[in-house]
Amino acid sequence: ARPRVGYYYSGKTPGKVIAEKLHRIKVGEIKSVPVVVPEHCSVYDAVVTMFIEDVGTLFVVREGGLLEGVVSRKDLLKTTLGGQDIHKLPVGVVMTRMPNVITVGPEDSVWIAAKKLISHEVDALPVVRPAGEGAKSTELEVIGRLTKTNITRLFVELGEGN
Amino acid sequence: ARPRVGYYYSGKTPGKVIAEKLHRIKVGEIKSVPVVVPEHCSVYDAVVTMFIEDVGTLFVVREGGLLEGVVSRKDLLKTTLGGQDIHKLPVGVVMTRMPNVITVGPEDSVWIAAKKLISHEVDALPVVRPAGEGAKSTELEVIGRLTKTNITRLFVELGEGN
Repeated sequence: ARPRVGYYYSGKTPGKVIAEKLHRIKVGEIKSVPVVVPEHCSVYDAVVTMFIEDVGTLFVVREGGLLEGVVSRKDLLKTTLGGQDIHKLPVGVVMTRMPNVITVGPEDSVWIAAKKLISHEVDALPVVRPAGEGAKSTELEVIGRLTKTNITRLFVELGEGN
Repeated sequence: ARPRVGYYYSGKTPGKVIAEKLHRIKVGEIKSVPVVVPEHCSVYDAVVTMFIEDVGTLFVVREGGLLEGVVSRKDLLKTTLGGQDIHKLPVGVVMTRMPNVITVGPEDSVWIAAKKLISHEVDALPVVRPAGEGAKSTELEVIGRLTKTNITRLFVELGEGN
């Protein structure tokens, strides 16, 4: 019989209900604040920034917050083993440089972001939008950070029934 | 009217459907293989192991796979900056040592695991079971690894409607 109280869904499996929900939540709703450094920043200062801000990935930007590259804890750990002077080596030398950076937009679904994190094997994505007037069409402004931590936190919240 | 085809759920919001699903999936279903090193392993060799195995966290074990501690990319990055001889420094000196390691069991829900990852601010949990005969009651055997990557991958799969 038809339930007397509450909601009901016709023709939807639990999997379908979950899939629709995950596709509906947008990156802009759960993104974190980006932590950025300039390209001439030393590897040593980048590591210090990473510890002070307690993040695993830094975005390298130039004036106006325009994305130049991304540097991860893994990149920095590899560099510290290399025997170079990390006080002099600029982070621009060891970062992944545009256009090889995987990005996501604030209106993309968190499901798309999660898929990019897994398929490209990265821990964090810069959340970007096209740069404003006067910029080249390929230039991107960093407005956030989307990580596996954001996805895990969302997972916890969904499990609380929110 | 009652739907003529498909499933329907009485009194369940979409949030409730999702929450029930997340509480039903067990750690043992999605865990990864653990990557382990012995306590006398040097910090240098631990970093090399991390790169070869492409993981962010190593579990430090003694004979029988018994858990001694956990060492993360963050712990190792901090150590490489410290100016000590990482070829001589054993990983046991820089790891988080038992009983301060946060663990999870194979029968725990992935939701519980995700909650531990977030609240204790770690990237990975050792999946453990009580050690066998002859061991102390506090001893734990490492049988897997549960990370934010596992949670993110599950999130992608749930979004595909599986």
